Amino acid sequence: MHNHLTIQIDPSKIEQHFSVLSQIGRLGMSPESGFLRASWSYEESEAMAYIRQVGVENGLIAHYDAVGNLFLTTPYQKPTLLQMGSHLDTVPMGGNYDGAAGVVVGLEATLTLKDHWQEMEHALQLVAWRGEESATFGALCKGSQAAFGKNDPKILRKEFEGNSLEDAILSQGYDPAYISEQRPTLSRAQVDAIHAHIELHIEQAKSLEVNRLDIGIVSSIRGAVRFRAIVDGEAAHSGGTPMGVEYRQDANLAIAYMQVALDKRVQEALAMGDDLVLTVGLLNSDFNYNLHDPRVYENALTKVSPFGYFAVDIRSNRAETLARIVADAKQIIEQVARDFRVSVTFQSITELAPTETLDERIQEAVDESCRSLGLKSVVMSSGALHDVAVVANQRRSDGSRIPSGLIFIPCREGISHNPKEYASLEALTNGAQVLAQTLYRLGKENFN
Amino acid sequence: MHNHLTIQIDPSKIEQHFSVLSQIGRLGMSPESGFLRASWSYEESEAMAYIRQVGVENGLIAHYDAVGNLFLTTPYQKPTLLQMGSHLDTVPMGGNYDGAAGVVVGLEATLTLKDHWQEMEHALQLVAWRGEESATFGALCKGSQAAFGKNDPKILRKEFEGNSLEDAILSQGYDPAYISEQRPTLSRAQVDAIHAHIELHIEQAKSLEVNRLDIGIVSSIRGAVRFRAIVDGEAAHSGGTPMGVEYRQDANLAIAYMQVALDKRVQEALAMGDDLVLTVGLLNSDFNYNLHDPRVYENALTKVSPFGYFAVDIRSNRAETLARIVADAKQIIEQVARDFRVSVTFQSITELAPTETLDERIQEAVDESCRSLGLKSVVMSSGALHDVAVVANQRRSDGSRIPSGLIFIPCREGISHNPKEYASLEALTNGAQVLAQTLYRLGKENFN
Repeated sequence: MHNHLTIQIDPSKIEQHFSVLSQIGRLGMSPESGFLRASWSYEESEAMAYIRQVGVENGLIAHYDAVGNLFLTTPYQKPTLLQMGSHLDTVPMGGNYDGAAGVVVGLEATLTLKDHWQEMEHALQLVAWRGEESATFGALCKGSQAAFGKNDPKILRKEFEGNSLEDAILSQGYDPAYISEQRPTLSRAQVDAIHAHIELHIEQAKSLEVNRLDIGIVSSIRGAVRFRAIVDGEAAHSGGTPMGVEYRQDANLAIAYMQVALDKRVQEALAMGDDLVLTVGLLNSDFNYNLHDPRVYENALTKVSPFGYFAVDIRSNRAETLARIVADAKQIIEQVARDFRVSVTFQSITELAPTETLDERIQEAVDESCRSLGLKSVVMSSGALHDVAVVANQRRSDGSRIPSGLIFIPCREGISHNPKEYASLEALTNGAQVLAQTLYRLGKENFN
Repeated sequence: MHNHLTIQIDPSKIEQHFSVLSQIGRLGMSPESGFLRASWSYEESEAMAYIRQVGVENGLIAHYDAVGNLFLTTPYQKPTLLQMGSHLDTVPMGGNYDGAAGVVVGLEATLTLKDHWQEMEHALQLVAWRGEESATFGALCKGSQAAFGKNDPKILRKEFEGNSLEDAILSQGYDPAYISEQRPTLSRAQVDAIHAHIELHIEQAKSLEVNRLDIGIVSSIRGAVRFRAIVDGEAAHSGGTPMGVEYRQDANLAIAYMQVALDKRVQEALAMGDDLVLTVGLLNSDFNYNLHDPRVYENALTKVSPFGYFAVDIRSNRAETLARIVADAKQIIEQVARDFRVSVTFQSITELAPTETLDERIQEAVDESCRSLGLKSVVMSSGALHDVAVVANQRRSDGSRIPSGLIFIPCREGISHNPKEYASLEALTNGAQVLAQTLYRLGKENFN
């Protein structure tokens, strides 16, 4: 079977797209100032409009679904789709590559295959999902989940910078009723037509860079459970109140002991071989939370701390591990709270199951593409969650899951969610070559 | 020597004063909502104006010094003064008794002695100092230090709710140049005339209440060293970045380990018999700091924490202990920072020396007054700092310190800097009886 295609991705086009995107949602004078393209913001819409324009000018058919996800499809009628997806939104003070890399590379891979669109077994479709990042509106993969009717309707009331998600969706001209009613924006027939789904993404860690590899072939994706722990102590004078839990109900101190106890528990689990990360990313520092519940400002230099909160993000690529560590973490926090005579309440933020195994035939196609291109690849796990995890967990009418794959390219020093986030043009071009080859391979066969 | 005086404090007058003050700077519909009378605020000035009015209507001579401290003096010319002082400002979400108790009780003790003003050896003078609380503008005992030219001029640039201390002083019609130039508002002759100085204050701890005592006779006052530790880590993706300091430079986690290490060090010192309290009152939660340096909001649910800060308040009644623990604390914080590959910088906020011994003759006079009144007293140390500590550390022209005393009355459950702060009318009345008796005793003799 002649599966290798001699095509050449043009790096200058990729460079051009990032140059345009680097103007959209930038927070200062240079890309080093960081970006904010919030979920359903004007900046996200502007980034989508640019990608749409390039696609349409080059022969793709564009449409937005009811919540504003952008679909760009090759123009030949085919019964099935090879779908690529990623997102264009960023975290606050984020970079220009998390998400955008997959959209730009998917676009160039698709356009480079133009001479083959007609002959391929399946149509190609690039999706730019809305609102993947939970850093805005505290819920993740909102656009891709909306496509399958999977969001919790309560997320519409979540806020970012004083506006609700519902208002943000309306502000961009889309319909939040699809989320409030859990109505999928994709019809059953559209879902059934997805032959395979592939996301390309920057690694957001440094194992590719450290091991001088070009491509990561992802075999599993960590799920995430995120919750907020809210701690109520009792204010008291910092000079007159003796030390010790019999005198003090110190929220700040209790939270410190909670964090340390959680860290020790994670170290134990890692030593036992569990796949696991646990992060306290927010500690009294959620601008929106503080806006609505300003009790954290009752803390003062001269007070034993009466109030504090923190958010815990726990991830594993095994559902069993995730459930076990989440239960342990809550028990640990409650035990420390009792020890320090403070009270604690939990608020659930996110629960997304791991994707324990991605489609092996797609992994093989990526692997063959790398070898045919002379690129070094490795099979690995994804620490970060991506929209592909949503797609991979959906079932078609016949009960089968949508075959899904995830391709990583290196990013500098593994840094992400940070203005220093950077993927080299070489890494992006390699990714586009591999994606184009993989699409071509998958497009020539019907592996269902 | 006939030193006991049969006088009767009228509790209804004390009640009346607190009833008026409970309307000034209240944050909600009831006193349980808490108070804010910030340093050099309209609310502080209004509380001073009320005390001034009551004093003047009852025959006292009133004047404000150049920074707005209020002085109420008996009208008979005497070469020397028996001075009482406390303050009327509050912390944010504070109570109505911290400071105000000493001013109200001092006023009623002075007025109840009216028939004896002429015969006494010394004039009586009540001072309501400005701005004692460091919770507003991050500097303590600002009014009493201004009287002696002891403030660091830099405090004028400190801010609260977006305004500088300099602007706040100007807004109330007073002259910040006395602070910027470290020019005392009291003349050398006025300082030399202070025969003795007494402050009455709520205990802000619960040892009097627990031991069912009426009066605390304070023999030493804890000094305080306060500093801010600012921790810079590195943002990274919370899902993709493996655990461990080789991958993560996590500011939140480093700060947790710092707090726990500080707590362990304090426990060791207490076990060795040191007098010591150490409090992390602010952790990422200083509204004004965040306004000017919003980096704390770069933290997010899905980021390894890039930035955090906390404020440490360390107090002891021994200068040696204070210096030793402060040095240890900074070393501990720096060591944890190295362990977690984060950087830390320190910003000094306050350094005020302990008052290791208050005047023993005043303590004896208070003790005799309690016994003559049938009130139960105890000699104790003060955990909290008060304006009297500033006065006690000043020297007169002959090199002697101003003899100073501090009287505590119980407050409910020891709670202070909290809307629940409360001193009973009985406790306040007992305090006024003791203060009046003590003034009478000291006023009949010249103990220099």
